[in-house]
Amino acid sequence: MAGGALAQQPAPPAPAPQAPAAVEPASIPESAIAIARQLQQKALTDPTSYALVESLTTRVGPRLPGTPGDRAAVAWAVQAMKDIGLKNVRTEEVPVVGWLRGGEKAEVLAPAPQPLVVTALGYSAATPPGGITAEIVQFDSFADLRAALPGSLEGKIAFISGRTVRTQDGAGYGAAVVARSRGPAEAAKKGAVGLIIRSIGTESHRLAHTGMVSIEGGLPPLPAAAVSNPDADQLERLLKLGPVRIRLELTPTLPGQVTSHNVIGEIPGREAPEEIVLLGAHLDSWDLGTGAIDDGAGVGIVMGAAKLIGELPQKPRRTLRIVLFAAEEVGLVGAKAYAEAHKAELANHVVGTEADFGAGPVYRFATFFSPEAKAAGEAIQAALAPIGVLPGPNNASGGPDMGPLRRLGVPVVSLAQDGSDYFDVHHTPDDTLDKVDPKKLAQSTAAFATFGWLAAEGRGSFRPTPLQPE
Amino acid sequence: MAGGALAQQPAPPAPAPQAPAAVEPASIPESAIAIARQLQQKALTDPTSYALVESLTTRVGPRLPGTPGDRAAVAWAVQAMKDIGLKNVRTEEVPVVGWLRGGEKAEVLAPAPQPLVVTALGYSAATPPGGITAEIVQFDSFADLRAALPGSLEGKIAFISGRTVRTQDGAGYGAAVVARSRGPAEAAKKGAVGLIIRSIGTESHRLAHTGMVSIEGGLPPLPAAAVSNPDADQLERLLKLGPVRIRLELTPTLPGQVTSHNVIGEIPGREAPEEIVLLGAHLDSWDLGTGAIDDGAGVGIVMGAAKLIGELPQKPRRTLRIVLFAAEEVGLVGAKAYAEAHKAELANHVVGTEADFGAGPVYRFATFFSPEAKAAGEAIQAALAPIGVLPGPNNASGGPDMGPLRRLGVPVVSLAQDGSDYFDVHHTPDDTLDKVDPKKLAQSTAAFATFGWLAAEGRGSFRPTPLQPE
Repeated sequence: MAGGALAQQPAPPAPAPQAPAAVEPASIPESAIAIARQLQQKALTDPTSYALVESLTTRVGPRLPGTPGDRAAVAWAVQAMKDIGLKNVRTEEVPVVGWLRGGEKAEVLAPAPQPLVVTALGYSAATPPGGITAEIVQFDSFADLRAALPGSLEGKIAFISGRTVRTQDGAGYGAAVVARSRGPAEAAKKGAVGLIIRSIGTESHRLAHTGMVSIEGGLPPLPAAAVSNPDADQLERLLKLGPVRIRLELTPTLPGQVTSHNVIGEIPGREAPEEIVLLGAHLDSWDLGTGAIDDGAGVGIVMGAAKLIGELPQKPRRTLRIVLFAAEEVGLVGAKAYAEAHKAELANHVVGTEADFGAGPVYRFATFFSPEAKAAGEAIQAALAPIGVLPGPNNASGGPDMGPLRRLGVPVVSLAQDGSDYFDVHHTPDDTLDKVDPKKLAQSTAAFATFGWLAAEGRGSFRPTPLQPE
Repeated sequence: MAGGALAQQPAPPAPAPQAPAAVEPASIPESAIAIARQLQQKALTDPTSYALVESLTTRVGPRLPGTPGDRAAVAWAVQAMKDIGLKNVRTEEVPVVGWLRGGEKAEVLAPAPQPLVVTALGYSAATPPGGITAEIVQFDSFADLRAALPGSLEGKIAFISGRTVRTQDGAGYGAAVVARSRGPAEAAKKGAVGLIIRSIGTESHRLAHTGMVSIEGGLPPLPAAAVSNPDADQLERLLKLGPVRIRLELTPTLPGQVTSHNVIGEIPGREAPEEIVLLGAHLDSWDLGTGAIDDGAGVGIVMGAAKLIGELPQKPRRTLRIVLFAAEEVGLVGAKAYAEAHKAELANHVVGTEADFGAGPVYRFATFFSPEAKAAGEAIQAALAPIGVLPGPNNASGGPDMGPLRRLGVPVVSLAQDGSDYFDVHHTPDDTLDKVDPKKLAQSTAAFATFGWLAAEGRGSFRPTPLQPE
């Protein structure tokens, strides 16, 4: 998942003109529940999801949008969808602003010379040749940096040292990530020549977390990097001894506009093929690791769930659509492109969700449904309860790539995965296959299969009453 | 600690001509035991050891022999010894063969292009400009590489993929480290152009373990690097798909002979100042981390113990000598220099030990004593029991830097620390202060203080009967 997604509260959906004025509320047939139970049990031992994560992370590896790895991932996904029996497998072009990591190096020059472990933030500017040498100025939070006087950081490197709190649902990340998304623009406003942030991560290893800088106001004017947590601790200790001078060298490049692709495959519905239940994940990854938990796991989960549903004796009533989104990490670009390209059929998107929170087990089922669909939501949760899924609230985000669809009125659910250790490896070189527990992954697959099947086998509408824009 | 130390079984000591033919066996006075109890309790909450580790790793940081960091460490140690009240503080020159890390980079070129996390092994040769590009050939162990036919690796890079087993006492490291110490020479014999080993470490992070290659037969003729455990896993998976081609670039340099220093300080004995109880640790560290557990922790432990003993109302009967050895990591060079420089007074070295196994608590007390000193050893262990220290065997190594002294007949003990997680961070960039638990460190300080005090307050000899050379 990208940074911005959790940081924002889900925005209220805009009026959805394509939503029918009055429709039958959602219902889940009893016969579907019985089949869901068997499907769920099968999923708990099915090896497909893990095998797909292994295959994607081994045969492709890192897949930053616009790179050869990304193109290989799209080809891999097309083939993998065909291999698990999906129909209508196709790709849709997604134009992306490219950014490529270069070298990255930083060192403390004084008072105690030593290397720092850093990584450039996505869309960071490059340093001049030879890097920049400057004193660092510590801020405990983004808010403190914002409160600094304009010009007060002239010639300095701002250092935001706030820590990410470990939580099950990612709230700690959401609270911290503003330092990354808005830090560079803010530091530049105060006259800084660079920005260093403490990694937006919860572990204590010499690995730095990358992730995107907000480019809504244009590309960041500064070199911006994250340091590992132990390095941030060390900078704090060194600053207590006196001024700390560092050298920072980052050489990322901007290849201009590049092209990626959403990859789509379906199990066409037997009775209402025009009605779509969407299970999504994103195919792209950051470049430091192999994208195993972010979001190879999600790819494995939704593909594994689709395979099991496709193997049932009877196809579901509605179409189950698997979407592997492009370029999630660099601004939900594929999701926005999907929403635009499928504008005309969004009224037929019955419900959607995305698996993009690692390989931990699903522990909560939340909805964003109409009040009339409450009973159907409860029926789905009851079917998920045997594998440890608790009821959640009715304000689900649906996952980062569901944001654009949700804002256009598409009902969503969140099959919330336990992310207690997600931010130990997310966006770091450590995002590799060994961090995926096959049993936990299978539980998530069971949850997505259960939901996907029940929603696709159901009748009627989940669609929330369009809220008035604020 | 360096690699070779645990890998070797302690060699039998050579005859010790300076050992008196018949002496009073060791005894520990009851009055000393009572004081030890108070000393121990005080040590459990004394902040000195942790403060010293913090200071050394912050104010100095990495300290590879011959570097500015090493010189800063020696100056730091001299001052720190004076600050805690030691007398006769002095340094002794240690000539060392220098080796400096350069750039290090590796990537898989085929079948799936991706970066690898590598680090050069100590004394690795440099690659030609542009690096070497070659196929890798996997061996599951050093023994398998040794069994390969001469010339069979012509133009290839050997890859030893054996795993390090997690153990409390470091036995897993000892078994695995031969791949590092002897791998480069062996790979060269088979015609290889380079060597890659799976890191001799127990963690699963994208951090590679450095450590020294044996230079007994001369400097290694090959570029040799370790890959992180997840990268080694990935190479194994890629090799199952077909040939794996990598590019490896290492640019270490050999600055020739450099100089480091052993640092020595004492609490002079009140009655038998010529009799020496030695508490050692090593001051140098690998360059990737800040040397917090290897061996900042040991420095903190023995210095913290000495401070507390020095603050007792009455100084101990014998001299307590603290030795911070130079250049342990690159072949116990400071220990060998100490043994040579102090040849004439080794008969007066009553007993010695080194703290060089991290910041974990002491769980076992082992000796290498004469049979006649058994009761004294048991008395010391009994005094250590209240802080969780079990009895151990009578074949203690004493720690890496005690090796040269032990071989010359000096009695040693091992205050064995729990090293279950030591090889998660040892010799990696992750060897930083956050890995030190102040409470566990204080327990170790309590154990070293107890032992140091009792041995220095005792009478008689621990000296083992010289064994016949094999």
